[in-house]
Amino acid sequence: MLEYRIFHLNDFTLQHGATLRGAVLAYQTYGELAPDRGNAILYPTWYSGRHTDNEWLIGPGMTLDPSRYFIIVPNMLGNGLSSSPSNTAPPYDRARFPHVTMYDNVAAQHRLVTEQFGIERLALVTGWSMGAGQTYQWAVSHPDMVARIAPFCGSSRTSVHNQVFLEGVKSALTADAAFNGGWYERQPMTGLRAAARVYAGWGFSQAFYWQHLYQRLGHTSLEDFLIGFWEGFFLDDRDANNLLTMLWTWQHADVGLTPGFGGDTVAALSSIKARALVMPAEKDLYFPPEDEVWAVGHMPNAELRVIPGVWGHFAGHGSNPDDTRFIDQGLRELMSA
Amino acid sequence: MLEYRIFHLNDFTLQHGATLRGAVLAYQTYGELAPDRGNAILYPTWYSGRHTDNEWLIGPGMTLDPSRYFIIVPNMLGNGLSSSPSNTAPPYDRARFPHVTMYDNVAAQHRLVTEQFGIERLALVTGWSMGAGQTYQWAVSHPDMVARIAPFCGSSRTSVHNQVFLEGVKSALTADAAFNGGWYERQPMTGLRAAARVYAGWGFSQAFYWQHLYQRLGHTSLEDFLIGFWEGFFLDDRDANNLLTMLWTWQHADVGLTPGFGGDTVAALSSIKARALVMPAEKDLYFPPEDEVWAVGHMPNAELRVIPGVWGHFAGHGSNPDDTRFIDQGLRELMSA
Repeated sequence: MLEYRIFHLNDFTLQHGATLRGAVLAYQTYGELAPDRGNAILYPTWYSGRHTDNEWLIGPGMTLDPSRYFIIVPNMLGNGLSSSPSNTAPPYDRARFPHVTMYDNVAAQHRLVTEQFGIERLALVTGWSMGAGQTYQWAVSHPDMVARIAPFCGSSRTSVHNQVFLEGVKSALTADAAFNGGWYERQPMTGLRAAARVYAGWGFSQAFYWQHLYQRLGHTSLEDFLIGFWEGFFLDDRDANNLLTMLWTWQHADVGLTPGFGGDTVAALSSIKARALVMPAEKDLYFPPEDEVWAVGHMPNAELRVIPGVWGHFAGHGSNPDDTRFIDQGLRELMSA
Repeated sequence: MLEYRIFHLNDFTLQHGATLRGAVLAYQTYGELAPDRGNAILYPTWYSGRHTDNEWLIGPGMTLDPSRYFIIVPNMLGNGLSSSPSNTAPPYDRARFPHVTMYDNVAAQHRLVTEQFGIERLALVTGWSMGAGQTYQWAVSHPDMVARIAPFCGSSRTSVHNQVFLEGVKSALTADAAFNGGWYERQPMTGLRAAARVYAGWGFSQAFYWQHLYQRLGHTSLEDFLIGFWEGFFLDDRDANNLLTMLWTWQHADVGLTPGFGGDTVAALSSIKARALVMPAEKDLYFPPEDEVWAVGHMPNAELRVIPGVWGHFAGHGSNPDDTRFIDQGLRELMSA
């Protein structure tokens, strides 16, 4: 049973014009907010992840130590806990759920942070993958409110190649006629499993597979990994429309689309005031380090630190102790700076 | 109108036991066979490619000059011209077409080369992608018959990651209910187009997309590239069962499975007598250079030469003049060695 709290956004107007009535943000907190409200850290979720999936980076002795910081983990819109196709009442339900941007996610989180907790400044925003995208968006949407950011295995703008990777996932999912344009009564299992198999090649690096490291995750063969890990991942209480909502958010992510920047990603990056530690993974196939070299080159106060090793994108998933230590150490240095 | 010749294999027994009755190999030749039959080059096709798709590397002034060499391009089994699900009479037609290995392809080509042309030794075997796989297989199946090999953007054994990439393509194609287990009356268009979109992210590198190099191929936007190039590619007289037959061949490719080696890929590579020039592409996402470093390390007389640049796997497709020159120059040096 997932435990979390609900923040009522009530009428929430999205960047593209739709208004979600009765919108909610599901979130969880770890630790206590200091009397001066200066110890708050925001740690958004990733594609299909829930707040519990972020907990590997939180704990006693780690940088994100609840005895020291007040850590807020908001669930992304579309993830099934916050407002999503699967839990929204008609007429904006299911296939009619509107397009949600990274900007929208941050706008909703900003209301949570300010209205619910009265926080005026965040000590850190950090996140993996789409969580990294929200992290960048925070620094652009609210430059004076964010002291530090640490996006890992993500980007400020979804690259063209990354869009294509996602297009493959989407095409596989929707190729199943049971998807029925989003008006299914039961989950399109064939499509979900196909999407999982498409995703499998992207999530971990070539070298990860070469070395059979899926065995370290407890999988006894490649097929056991494809079914047990990947298909299981896509069937774990996921919903096809939810997945496509978040996929749209991801495909269209670009801090340059923040109001006021007119599509100029470089200008948006240049406007960031937060001290930044950017950690791409060496062999991430859809957020390659080269892209983050470019981003850091346009940020006034940013350091690039590549997570070494062969786990690819999943370096930021909490599955590999070496990568977890690397990220935690990076956060430690950033917080003491 | 494709022009080609047919070699009748008649009863052709495959490695896994099935016998294709009335089997054929479609092929084309370029140039004239010398009286001593010493100027023959074999240049097998790639996944879904036809002999005409190899012609970019053949021509006056190029290393594969028909005025000097007799170049044979055999069409791979399953490609729609040689025996394939789409052109085989019942009962081995369509979904019942048997599994074909790299070893089978080379066995069929060996019969063509020896029975039709009386060739005892090939000056060179070369090929791109699955053509590279057949090239390796030639050097292992017939070590005394192959003077030189030049596999480019391919491998001697399909890596686990490469298998996973293909699994995604297959899953997308077969997620379309119209595929109907291979017993479709019309091509499963949704599945073919989904497979194309999955493939799109793999065929070219992240940097290729970052730099919008699809514009160099005449495509006016990303979507124009996805439809015009990729979907067009998968709809260009392809057949779903044919694609899956070749995909199976690819997924299961391993020179170690040649009879006599008992699955020992290293032993098979070590048995190669041909002088080898191995040319992976720097940013090939499914045949990464690292894998070929490994293979070359087990071959007695092999040089590795990485094709530089950002075209990824399609460095070997003949679309980029720089890559074509690089490959042609490599072949030139190999032939004069």
